[in-house]
Amino acid sequence: MQPIERIKEFGGWLNRYRHASTACGCEMTFSVYLPPQAETGRVPAVYWLSGFACTDDSARTRIGAQRDAAELGLALVMPDTSPRGAEVPDLPDRDDLGQGAGFYVNATQSPWETHYRMYDYVTRELPALVEQELPLMTGMRSIAGHSMGGHGALICALGNPGMFWSVSAFAPICNPSLSGWGRQCFSAYLGDNRENWKDYDATCLIESGASAPPLLIDQGTDDEFLADQLHPENLKAACERHGIPCNLRMREGYDHSDRFVATFIGEHLAYHAKALGLMRDG
Amino acid sequence: MQPIERIKEFGGWLNRYRHASTACGCEMTFSVYLPPQAETGRVPAVYWLSGFACTDDSARTRIGAQRDAAELGLALVMPDTSPRGAEVPDLPDRDDLGQGAGFYVNATQSPWETHYRMYDYVTRELPALVEQELPLMTGMRSIAGHSMGGHGALICALGNPGMFWSVSAFAPICNPSLSGWGRQCFSAYLGDNRENWKDYDATCLIESGASAPPLLIDQGTDDEFLADQLHPENLKAACERHGIPCNLRMREGYDHSDRFVATFIGEHLAYHAKALGLMRDG
Repeated sequence: MQPIERIKEFGGWLNRYRHASTACGCEMTFSVYLPPQAETGRVPAVYWLSGFACTDDSARTRIGAQRDAAELGLALVMPDTSPRGAEVPDLPDRDDLGQGAGFYVNATQSPWETHYRMYDYVTRELPALVEQELPLMTGMRSIAGHSMGGHGALICALGNPGMFWSVSAFAPICNPSLSGWGRQCFSAYLGDNRENWKDYDATCLIESGASAPPLLIDQGTDDEFLADQLHPENLKAACERHGIPCNLRMREGYDHSDRFVATFIGEHLAYHAKALGLMRDG
Repeated sequence: MQPIERIKEFGGWLNRYRHASTACGCEMTFSVYLPPQAETGRVPAVYWLSGFACTDDSARTRIGAQRDAAELGLALVMPDTSPRGAEVPDLPDRDDLGQGAGFYVNATQSPWETHYRMYDYVTRELPALVEQELPLMTGMRSIAGHSMGGHGALICALGNPGMFWSVSAFAPICNPSLSGWGRQCFSAYLGDNRENWKDYDATCLIESGASAPPLLIDQGTDDEFLADQLHPENLKAACERHGIPCNLRMREGYDHSDRFVATFIGEHLAYHAKALGLMRDG
């Protein structure tokens, strides 16, 4: 875990690291924000998963979550969105498949299966690494994300009961088996047998009885991708059928951009802080 | 004034406009954030001047000032950092001269003098335009900026008594006549006669008796440009000699980046809100 950048923000420190990833079989870069409270003790962490075309750098420079994390005493763990490098398969003219679009799955199909293992990276390798090397409380984790990363947060929480204390998402791809983005990523990474897609589709996971913490989802009403790609109504209906609380908040006038995320990230981090025991009265 | 983008943020609206600028003799783009309070009445404005290589887009996407502006009821007016376009002289491989580096002066030297008139643009044309077209209170303005833009904020306030109710800066170029960045921009835009530089050098303006509101300056101690380019100690000494309050705060461990600005922008906007009469007790 090689430090590559260190910047003081809001009294704490943004650290970027590079490391040789076993899961992805390549060098990976990630960012961790440590709040001021981490100088005197271990802190819980929120994992943040970004959307298409983002890197570990995108959220930390554009969303402003560090301000709330510093106030609440939360670390932010921000992985990249895919494996990277010259040896990693890519479609350079596509934002929604290949590098920058790992879709948080473990690929099984050629040529993707060697490196595109973001599910294992996010749920196994990265937590073990950062909890060993940084002042983070072991096992005290929540997860959140935006768009493709909102999908990632939901499937990581639904597929790993007990691993994350709370989960939230902004404009997530809630039922990727029915979305153009999801179908092309699933076909490429997992093949055409739709049975193999179900473990990576939040709505299907709920339908097949996954246990889950309550879901918090913010969705802009003016999101240009809402009608064709996101399907929050399918996830909400599945949750109702299975008795899982799903707080889907439709936000009037907001679009799909990171400005929407910036507006409500403070509320999401406060929600996670409460789940992680930091705000007993919140 | 042609609207080109409109995004909901923090309950208010970020609007981008393009217009034919008389001062700069080209099309200019700027951004204005209108807080929720602007839907029911006119609001005061803080003008934000960015640094080298920025556009009107940089601050709005990276600093997070909209959050505080929404809470306080302030508009943010964010101009570009230079004239733009194929017809505008440029040095494409330079970040610190030409397009993206107008240095907030009125150029007098060829080939710059036709378009590089950012001082007139920021202090004359833009305020008149936005106060006519948008729900802004006439004459209720403050100004702030970062690096080259901190220099710009200081000289615009010092050179135009009564125009801005308050001024603040992050890591400003305080004495550009003595800085490498300042000397090359002044030589190119204003020529080699240093007498003509003094109207655009904050320390020289103070020394020559400019009246000024109190100055608020934040400066990181780990700023990589502090020793060679910024010279806040010269400005502070000039203010002391002339009885002008200068609150220079050295911020331990912070660098020159926009993450430093993001950390303290809330304090600066609260300072301006108080000067503009929005926070009587602050």
